[in-house]
Amino acid sequence: MNGLKRTHMCGELRESNIGEKITVMGWVQRKRNLGGLVFVDLRDRTGILQIVFGEKINREAFQKSDNVKSEYCIAATGVIVKRESPNKGIPTGMVELKGEYIKIFSESETPPIYIKENLDTDENIRLKYRYLDLRRPDMQRILRLRHRTAKVIRDFMDEEGFAEIETPILGKSTPEGARDYLVPSRNYKGKFYALPQSPQLFKQLLMVSGFDRYFQIVKCFRDEDLRANRQPEFTQVDMELSFVEQEDVMALNERLLQRVFKKILNLDIKLPIERMPYRIAMEKYGSDKPDLRFGMEINDITDVVENTDFKVFQNAIEKGGSVRAIKVDGAASMSRKQIDKLVEFVKDYGAKGLVWIEYRENEVKSSASKFLSEEDMKAIFNKMKAEPGDLVLIAADKDKVVFDSLGALRVHMAKETGLLKDNNEFRFVWVTEFPLLSYNEEEKRYQAEHHPFTMPMDEDIQYLDSDPGRVRAKAYDIVLNGEELGGGSIRIHDTKLQEKMFQVIGIAQENAWDKFGYLLEAFKFGPPPHGGLAYGFDRMIMFLAKTDNIKDVIAFPKNQNAFCPLTEAPNVVDESQLKELGININRVKE
Amino acid sequence: MNGLKRTHMCGELRESNIGEKITVMGWVQRKRNLGGLVFVDLRDRTGILQIVFGEKINREAFQKSDNVKSEYCIAATGVIVKRESPNKGIPTGMVELKGEYIKIFSESETPPIYIKENLDTDENIRLKYRYLDLRRPDMQRILRLRHRTAKVIRDFMDEEGFAEIETPILGKSTPEGARDYLVPSRNYKGKFYALPQSPQLFKQLLMVSGFDRYFQIVKCFRDEDLRANRQPEFTQVDMELSFVEQEDVMALNERLLQRVFKKILNLDIKLPIERMPYRIAMEKYGSDKPDLRFGMEINDITDVVENTDFKVFQNAIEKGGSVRAIKVDGAASMSRKQIDKLVEFVKDYGAKGLVWIEYRENEVKSSASKFLSEEDMKAIFNKMKAEPGDLVLIAADKDKVVFDSLGALRVHMAKETGLLKDNNEFRFVWVTEFPLLSYNEEEKRYQAEHHPFTMPMDEDIQYLDSDPGRVRAKAYDIVLNGEELGGGSIRIHDTKLQEKMFQVIGIAQENAWDKFGYLLEAFKFGPPPHGGLAYGFDRMIMFLAKTDNIKDVIAFPKNQNAFCPLTEAPNVVDESQLKELGININRVKE
Repeated sequence: MNGLKRTHMCGELRESNIGEKITVMGWVQRKRNLGGLVFVDLRDRTGILQIVFGEKINREAFQKSDNVKSEYCIAATGVIVKRESPNKGIPTGMVELKGEYIKIFSESETPPIYIKENLDTDENIRLKYRYLDLRRPDMQRILRLRHRTAKVIRDFMDEEGFAEIETPILGKSTPEGARDYLVPSRNYKGKFYALPQSPQLFKQLLMVSGFDRYFQIVKCFRDEDLRANRQPEFTQVDMELSFVEQEDVMALNERLLQRVFKKILNLDIKLPIERMPYRIAMEKYGSDKPDLRFGMEINDITDVVENTDFKVFQNAIEKGGSVRAIKVDGAASMSRKQIDKLVEFVKDYGAKGLVWIEYRENEVKSSASKFLSEEDMKAIFNKMKAEPGDLVLIAADKDKVVFDSLGALRVHMAKETGLLKDNNEFRFVWVTEFPLLSYNEEEKRYQAEHHPFTMPMDEDIQYLDSDPGRVRAKAYDIVLNGEELGGGSIRIHDTKLQEKMFQVIGIAQENAWDKFGYLLEAFKFGPPPHGGLAYGFDRMIMFLAKTDNIKDVIAFPKNQNAFCPLTEAPNVVDESQLKELGININRVKE
Repeated sequence: MNGLKRTHMCGELRESNIGEKITVMGWVQRKRNLGGLVFVDLRDRTGILQIVFGEKINREAFQKSDNVKSEYCIAATGVIVKRESPNKGIPTGMVELKGEYIKIFSESETPPIYIKENLDTDENIRLKYRYLDLRRPDMQRILRLRHRTAKVIRDFMDEEGFAEIETPILGKSTPEGARDYLVPSRNYKGKFYALPQSPQLFKQLLMVSGFDRYFQIVKCFRDEDLRANRQPEFTQVDMELSFVEQEDVMALNERLLQRVFKKILNLDIKLPIERMPYRIAMEKYGSDKPDLRFGMEINDITDVVENTDFKVFQNAIEKGGSVRAIKVDGAASMSRKQIDKLVEFVKDYGAKGLVWIEYRENEVKSSASKFLSEEDMKAIFNKMKAEPGDLVLIAADKDKVVFDSLGALRVHMAKETGLLKDNNEFRFVWVTEFPLLSYNEEEKRYQAEHHPFTMPMDEDIQYLDSDPGRVRAKAYDIVLNGEELGGGSIRIHDTKLQEKMFQVIGIAQENAWDKFGYLLEAFKFGPPPHGGLAYGFDRMIMFLAKTDNIKDVIAFPKNQNAFCPLTEAPNVVDESQLKELGININRVKE
């Protein structure tokens, strides 16, 4: 650098700077020779500035400037002048720098990807050259947005009296749940640490410790097969509070979300956020993550069709299922081919079929026209408030299949019919009153839906023995545009109730002790009432940055195979390292 | 909770609250029955409040209160009244709560450790019952201080335009340096991820990406044998800046340290912080981490003694070594036994012996009195500015041994003579101009002192070929009270200079490529001038919290064997887990 000082950032220069002698540093976006002059667009993280070099401005700088190529890293000094032909497309477009001095810090080979917005290059190439991919303005913007979001959250939590406390990364493997990443121990050969899937037990221990209000923005790990938006390591915003009830946790988090969306997107979220019991979410939206940006609610038409002769309906009803439908406004004119695709679509959700009725102006077309009379159709239209031009889609099966199919179909149809175009709409909803337990058909026992420390709702504790499936939990998810942004629960802090829970889910005390021993031990010493919540931070950033690719919000993500094309991790290690750890690679083919 | 709301924290109640009806929640510090009343000291994270229950205040509450024991978790409601016999030892000591209502949230067994400050219990017991240990006010205070410090740092870095960017925890094993923790990959059996020892390469890649100013408070990992103040996972405050020189990094960090010490301890650090070249630090303090809270500098007395007949001195000088001494004020009257201990002490640092001279009022005693004349002694006293009552300690050997011995002895003597009593003195110093390379006698080659990307000082680049040992680096450590708080360097961004470095340290290009390939690849595309620094955050908290035990500043630390007595991690995992990972435990005894 030899004493050379950057005085300004490229993107901040305006007409008010005209006449100032400045120095900027950055990367060459492009270089052109035009009319005996050299024009260099210089890019730093704030934007682009045009620099002009010429024989008459400074001969040495002019000659040197002709050597630069794209992505060279340089500094330039000169006076800011008014630009003869302004470029209104960029904020600095009214001015340019008359280059009196240029320093080339380093040269660049031709980069294998373009440094521009909205790049459409193969993802593995982008990840292999991630350091170039990250030069692109959209990636710069997203990672700064991520930084600012974390800052806003930390400021808020601090104001609210929370302490950020770090919990261990080298933890203990828990036999249940998702697959752990393991870390062999050198001191205790044959034993392993596990990377945490969440700080759940530690945060509850911190409540036992009297910390009262804990939070952490923290890395968590799951060794699962990666779907589109999963990463082996991901970030949670995790919190836990003592001496609170469900409403306290929800109210605090509403204010947090309000703050985040205001500070980052300048959007006002109206409080309180709508609350919806799980049962209603399932019945109306077929999902515990209802997307409320559009209607198209599911209607129960069982009572309307229970006297028809249609076997598909009758079978479903006789088996204790139901017949339910959604109405797609103005979609009556779909082609047979389009309709067939919908029938295929719901099969992924376990439905054996889909009954459709096109309510056209002059006729009614239906896959069930042979089995449903004109009156049946009318009754259905009536119940569905269908009007000419609408499409009615009906599923008949066990409730679960009906909900899953119509819930997914509802979202699919909204996308197909253009109801989800506005990406500035954020519809939050709290889903509450989740079932505490679900019946595991294979193991013939109830199991905890969330985790076995979740508190039942007071009014339902009486059913723990007689009708466990009926018991609702003090659990709550915050759902945004049909996706789970976060979730949490109030935890059990009463030893007797905890024992009852283990009994109901058929875990013998000794087993419970094996799995959660240190938490149960801690609960012997005056645990406070407590509860908490955790957000998927990566997903939150995806919403704020309006991207649907998790890799866009992480600086150095892994690919679909949990491989890093940049560093080539994981890789082979020395035998001596394994020997020290007391492990061998199993070279036998399975 | 049943609608019960906490209205106040225990520690905040004062005479101004008299007459208010309030509800507090917390843990029973102690309960006493006195004069027909029940007195409960209730503790939450803010402090302690006395609650009095009586037959006449509320009969039901009184009866219930008699059942509580230490560490029960309870709520109490009542009116704040003036206390008859004030307790000036606590902030709430002027008032008490007249208990009209009590709710017992949970009971407690007798805790195995005392919940009080400055506990002197076996560390493994404290770690096993960490959730109780963390209830102690000093632990509460330290972890809140840790939270606040992280907040102050993040606020500062944000103001200065830094973005906090998360780098991967599942990284790539690097063959050099400390031992990595490995994580077996399930997708690529036989391959491993490694937990990062620092985000060094990623932060340099972020500079290549144009992020300009990166920081992170981040967990790092080293599978080393644990010494007193080491933990397998530790936290770094890590930063990197582009387009800067050494002075920019240092100036920024001075302001950061000033902010931290002001906000956390209300102490003013005067800027600029003193800078000291490595050579001076070694010559005057025998250490690259000089403790400047006291003098007792090392003096070179080679010239004074080179003409004496003392063989110990002559041998050292002939072999190219030196004779150096420290003077301990007023320590001339040490006993022979005490002196003997000092002689033993320096042997740990490679010294074969230690020459001592006690300059008493009426006589001079010395281990070398047979070999040194009265004039020799006088010359030494003169050079050392010694006065009657002082002790002079002399080492003669190779420079390294002399520096190591006297450097350690200097600190030892300061502690012994009570020079380090004031724990409110914080003496910072930047140590600069470190050697770039050191000669590896075994491998007969130079090696990088810091890492091979460290930039040589401009004026020394000319010696890279002719006299590599003479080349100083643009590296800097921030030292506080004789300990390294952080360190960093300016990095090489010039490909040709980088190649020269590899050549000088005898790493062939292909080897360099194996080890640092992706960084070298990135450097082909216009790397900016850049440099950075990293702090040991745990150590910083130890200073701020004035504790010398790293386990006091970490919520859930491991013990000396990298074992967690609380969770019992590491532990045995299922064979099926290992099978999925394609590894076996080596059961053959070595």
